[in-house]
Amino acid sequence: MSESAIPALSTWVEVPKNSDFTIYNLPFGVFKNKKLSPRIGIAIGDKIVDLSVLDQEGFFSSFFLPEGIFLKDSLNELIELGKTQTKKIRERVQQLLLAENEELRDHSARGKVMVNRKEAEMLLPVKIGDYTDFYSSIEHATNVGKMFRDPENALLPNWKHLPVGYHGRASSIVVSGTPIHRPKGQFKDPDMEKPAFGPSRRLDFELELAFITGKSTKLGDSVSTSEAEDYIFGFVLFNDWSARDIQAWEYVPLGPFLGKNFGSTISPWVVTLEAIEPFRVQGPSQDPEVLDYLKCENPHSFDIQLEVAIQPEGKSASKICTSNFKYMYWNIAQQLAHHTVNGCNINVGDMMASGTISGATEDSFGSMLELSWKGTRPVKLADGEERRFIEDGDTVIMKGFSEKDGIRVGFGEVSGQILPAKN
Amino acid sequence: MSESAIPALSTWVEVPKNSDFTIYNLPFGVFKNKKLSPRIGIAIGDKIVDLSVLDQEGFFSSFFLPEGIFLKDSLNELIELGKTQTKKIRERVQQLLLAENEELRDHSARGKVMVNRKEAEMLLPVKIGDYTDFYSSIEHATNVGKMFRDPENALLPNWKHLPVGYHGRASSIVVSGTPIHRPKGQFKDPDMEKPAFGPSRRLDFELELAFITGKSTKLGDSVSTSEAEDYIFGFVLFNDWSARDIQAWEYVPLGPFLGKNFGSTISPWVVTLEAIEPFRVQGPSQDPEVLDYLKCENPHSFDIQLEVAIQPEGKSASKICTSNFKYMYWNIAQQLAHHTVNGCNINVGDMMASGTISGATEDSFGSMLELSWKGTRPVKLADGEERRFIEDGDTVIMKGFSEKDGIRVGFGEVSGQILPAKN
Repeated sequence: MSESAIPALSTWVEVPKNSDFTIYNLPFGVFKNKKLSPRIGIAIGDKIVDLSVLDQEGFFSSFFLPEGIFLKDSLNELIELGKTQTKKIRERVQQLLLAENEELRDHSARGKVMVNRKEAEMLLPVKIGDYTDFYSSIEHATNVGKMFRDPENALLPNWKHLPVGYHGRASSIVVSGTPIHRPKGQFKDPDMEKPAFGPSRRLDFELELAFITGKSTKLGDSVSTSEAEDYIFGFVLFNDWSARDIQAWEYVPLGPFLGKNFGSTISPWVVTLEAIEPFRVQGPSQDPEVLDYLKCENPHSFDIQLEVAIQPEGKSASKICTSNFKYMYWNIAQQLAHHTVNGCNINVGDMMASGTISGATEDSFGSMLELSWKGTRPVKLADGEERRFIEDGDTVIMKGFSEKDGIRVGFGEVSGQILPAKN
Repeated sequence: MSESAIPALSTWVEVPKNSDFTIYNLPFGVFKNKKLSPRIGIAIGDKIVDLSVLDQEGFFSSFFLPEGIFLKDSLNELIELGKTQTKKIRERVQQLLLAENEELRDHSARGKVMVNRKEAEMLLPVKIGDYTDFYSSIEHATNVGKMFRDPENALLPNWKHLPVGYHGRASSIVVSGTPIHRPKGQFKDPDMEKPAFGPSRRLDFELELAFITGKSTKLGDSVSTSEAEDYIFGFVLFNDWSARDIQAWEYVPLGPFLGKNFGSTISPWVVTLEAIEPFRVQGPSQDPEVLDYLKCENPHSFDIQLEVAIQPEGKSASKICTSNFKYMYWNIAQQLAHHTVNGCNINVGDMMASGTISGATEDSFGSMLELSWKGTRPVKLADGEERRFIEDGDTVIMKGFSEKDGIRVGFGEVSGQILPAKN
């Protein structure tokens, strides 16, 4: 566990108080604006460091990077260079941004390198190969089990023995800000004689964090828990939109399908594993003892504060949930070791989401299903509004950040508005 | 329904009797050999028509094709040109191969165009975006329900109302001939107190057919049953390897995961929808009536004979199952309409598999699970062998073809050998 103090750094870039994008963070993203074609940048404060311009100006001349590596519409090729290279690039940018470093600060290209974040359009940061969703919060799984199965035996027998997960749809993962139409589909409530078709009546979000794989394996190979972090490039916030009525009717016996695959939304800035290293913590203890291939020598949990707000159209946003990534029963190393223990191969740009991150208290539940307890307890919002599920026009906003010794590393936000169902 | 006789065609290429790759078929594939880099070809008899050479020699000069469109390691970019173009290309090749056509037959480049299939290595034909597996055979779903749930209520309540499906893993789909290591994983048989870890003891195949999408949609858009075939490029045989013991322990409540994602194997030649058009038949009647969005104006089933053989290492192959694609309760148009009715977007190169294709008789069951009835009835093979499930060294071979009026259109085969679990 990293208990050492974080060395204090200061930068010549003006970074607003409480910015997620401090000199300690430096996440990677893909952006464009009215003048600039898609390219890779690193966020700091309200600026984006345009890595392609830094490269053209010779700031990476000793790195032997492939030509045009930053003039891409996804991070995949950059990530494929390997962690040694991407770490060096991020460290070089950190060095260039230090208050005392004059290389970029006093360079004539500084204005061209530093792009305003406000004027940039963020793109989906990676071409996602396969997407997996885990179900790793014991509080979430227990809540769902209580509601839909047996309150006395809420967890299924396998839950504490393996990180339950399933394959999701990669094509419909979109970047923050992309509106989503309310899905239509089949549902059959217990009081209905026959299934009906129409817009979902119980639309929900799920508060999740997802990691992006940074190294591939061959079919047949496995990744151990101790190797797992070498295969993880970074993290994004993940809103796993869910249509509860469609899901309830379809999911037996093969799992969620149309109740989920109409859209998932991720935050645009990929926060590296290195950036959240100072916030590593011991995870929950696991009882019963897990099988050998799931045992970990070191902690793989991270203290990342999470929150969700709902903003009805034309009204103000209300925070409805505060949770933390450290609550997760199964950690990222266990997830990846389990996923590959049968020889399933991974590629650079695969996405593996945590599953809904709920805490123990009622205000830390990571979905409307839990917050409104299946719609029985409306959640109060500002302006006299209340919600059981998500309504048309609502924007759901998730935020995440780590803070320690006055140092902050955050994800920005992932937001998405729900539009009415299409005709 | 297409009841018209197929016009008789003859070709100057020598096509062995009972070849799947007749002048009526002309499937697309990607191949290389010792001398040739990956490229796209069309199979006929024991030959491959090298489309890149045809193109270089000007045989497609009026088509305005992008340069090098056939010098690719996947069909994706070719398929993306659209059905109008790919149909024209296939028809042009058919024309060039006709007995009476001298253009290619008497051309000096003929030797360079016609590559021996035996010397070619077939590659995975498409870069698969997302992979979905349906569960559309009523006989298979009923068998599984009888074995694991209630023999009196074998089908779950949703089964006849929607084509149940789930997302699978695209990364581990490999081309015919690729060996697969027996997966390791967790299992807990009913008589075990705790879960254990080790090589799967109940390894199985699933006989399936999969379609490849040929046209993309935008997030939020749907494809109706009447439009569906415009979005389908062609078909391959699909072996959905399954580890029954791993699957049984993990699959509740989110569906199959490690019991499936260690590998799926497809046949290399993509048989187009146009090629199987003459074999279109009316599918099973559906009762209860389906919801409007699942109704079809025209038949979307196809009479494709399917068979599975097991070949123990160093022994001869034994046919253990004969089935037919026409048995499927849910057809491809219903599958695609359902998949997109909630706005889920599709991309060129997505793969959608049928689920295990079982018939009504015991010799038509499409998996060992059903053929050996959960391992209780060993299946007899040649040479005194018998099998409950697949053993190390076994090769599973699936074949598929349509035949009518002496005209044959087939898939060739998909085969895969199971190697012992890795250490």
